[in-house]
Amino acid sequence: MSRVLVTGGSGFIGRHAVAALVEAGHEVHVVSRRPPSTRPPPGVIWHQSDLLLDPIGTVAEVAPDRLLHLAWCTEPGRCWSSLENVLWVEATLALVRTFAAFGGTRAVFAGSCAEYEWGPPGPCVERSTSLRPATLYGISKDATRAVVEAAATELDLSVAWGRVFFLYGPAEDRRRLVAAVAHGLATGERVATSAGTQRRDFLHVSDVGGAFAAILDADACGPINIGSGQAPPLRALIDTLGEVAGRPELLDVGALPQRPGDPEELLADNTRLRDEVGFRPRVRLSEGLATTFAWWRDQARARSPGSLDVPRPAGAGS
Amino acid sequence: MSRVLVTGGSGFIGRHAVAALVEAGHEVHVVSRRPPSTRPPPGVIWHQSDLLLDPIGTVAEVAPDRLLHLAWCTEPGRCWSSLENVLWVEATLALVRTFAAFGGTRAVFAGSCAEYEWGPPGPCVERSTSLRPATLYGISKDATRAVVEAAATELDLSVAWGRVFFLYGPAEDRRRLVAAVAHGLATGERVATSAGTQRRDFLHVSDVGGAFAAILDADACGPINIGSGQAPPLRALIDTLGEVAGRPELLDVGALPQRPGDPEELLADNTRLRDEVGFRPRVRLSEGLATTFAWWRDQARARSPGSLDVPRPAGAGS
Repeated sequence: MSRVLVTGGSGFIGRHAVAALVEAGHEVHVVSRRPPSTRPPPGVIWHQSDLLLDPIGTVAEVAPDRLLHLAWCTEPGRCWSSLENVLWVEATLALVRTFAAFGGTRAVFAGSCAEYEWGPPGPCVERSTSLRPATLYGISKDATRAVVEAAATELDLSVAWGRVFFLYGPAEDRRRLVAAVAHGLATGERVATSAGTQRRDFLHVSDVGGAFAAILDADACGPINIGSGQAPPLRALIDTLGEVAGRPELLDVGALPQRPGDPEELLADNTRLRDEVGFRPRVRLSEGLATTFAWWRDQARARSPGSLDVPRPAGAGS
Repeated sequence: MSRVLVTGGSGFIGRHAVAALVEAGHEVHVVSRRPPSTRPPPGVIWHQSDLLLDPIGTVAEVAPDRLLHLAWCTEPGRCWSSLENVLWVEATLALVRTFAAFGGTRAVFAGSCAEYEWGPPGPCVERSTSLRPATLYGISKDATRAVVEAAATELDLSVAWGRVFFLYGPAEDRRRLVAAVAHGLATGERVATSAGTQRRDFLHVSDVGGAFAAILDADACGPINIGSGQAPPLRALIDTLGEVAGRPELLDVGALPQRPGDPEELLADNTRLRDEVGFRPRVRLSEGLATTFAWWRDQARARSPGSLDVPRPAGAGS
């Protein structure tokens, strides 16, 4: 058992990482800008603090053995070019220095597939695919990784950097693809999407959280892709959601243009995650999409009780 | 005329950059940990402050139009792996954010040839030579550049990054090559060096300072090499100093091993500096070495007055 500090522990990934770390028997401290939305599970100690205002207070107080740093700006759309990225570079470096100064030994960070060069199709491999981030978000993540990895020896730290690809799951921000489609289907709205020919590596958020917890408990250092190793076309996810909802007629695939510059494929080589960390995703995509839709359907019902009387379409997942 | 803030303005390069900026008619503010060693020249306003403790106070107070950020850890030997590099990344990002927030429009930073991949011989070209820094120093500089360049649009800043190669001149740290050799010769000591086959691009510090001042007043953006465009073997510099001092017999070239991993050549392509900035170095290497030796000889004499009576060796430069 270790004393672990998780930043961004109330976030989309963080909640699942915290659950996995508690499950693994750790004393888990969460630092979050927000108070806990429900009573934190047993074994979780909550610290309400804004890391951009004070990146070092909580880590100095907790003096954790291990650090899982997930906090960063993640608002869909805005995060690519937000100046908050620069603040997160500064805060992350201050955080990790302080973590080391107070006796921490193992630190894991949330990186992104946006650090890679988005070019021709083929899997991204941690140590051989070019790093050529094209956004302030990707550049800030990559720059932070480079400095933290280079400083690890002097800080006497073991450092790993989990590169997240695409993810989905219950309670996701509705501006993201799976959440937008599932929510639309659950509320009976027409859902307009692009043609969806782009292939993307999607992992259920509980597996992403689990992967981070596993990496924190492993010895592997450096960048480690967090992906499924498969990249179906977005169209396949959209169609699966339509089928699961029993409302494929609500889908208007191809109604929106594809984003310019969007790469054809973003696929993780997850050999390191599988072989060096020993982590295998648990949730198959079809299952995960079904339970995710069910969550959105339950949300929609809870919000408009009258809809309980509407006959459920055949084939709706639950 | 602009209001310019120079960080590291009391340093080896900074003093020369400040002189060039005053000469160009700017209102020059210097921020330095140290008080001025002599009365600052007219037109220079001194702010004593440690940027690592407070990176934003002075820049917020001065609200300069232009920023020349030269401060960083530079101690020979130690700077390559010092954790102070991480602090400088943080301080630099905070500084430039604050500079932009208080109305600054043009910022120039001191980069380094240590950002390039040190591989096969040939000139380093800003936008085509690989960036593959091998040290915490080089990685921290490169990471800072990447984030600052990427944030420039959002910050509404014009940003240039002067990559310094090798330099020499009066009052240099005696742990550096030219200063060590010149000081040894000036004090009549045996001077042990490596074989000196490595070729390096050396520029007189007054030209390096002048180049930074010229870049600050230019429009060119992005990385700009600050070098002479020529890389003689170190042996040539050592021999020139021996001749200038009239004491070639004090040189023991080849007595020290070459540093492992030291690249054969580090040469700047200075096309951007010449053509886009319009700066041409003024001090030829032979001249610069002669005046640098003369400075060390004067220092040695001033410290041991008796030595004034010692006959001067023939050929000593002055």
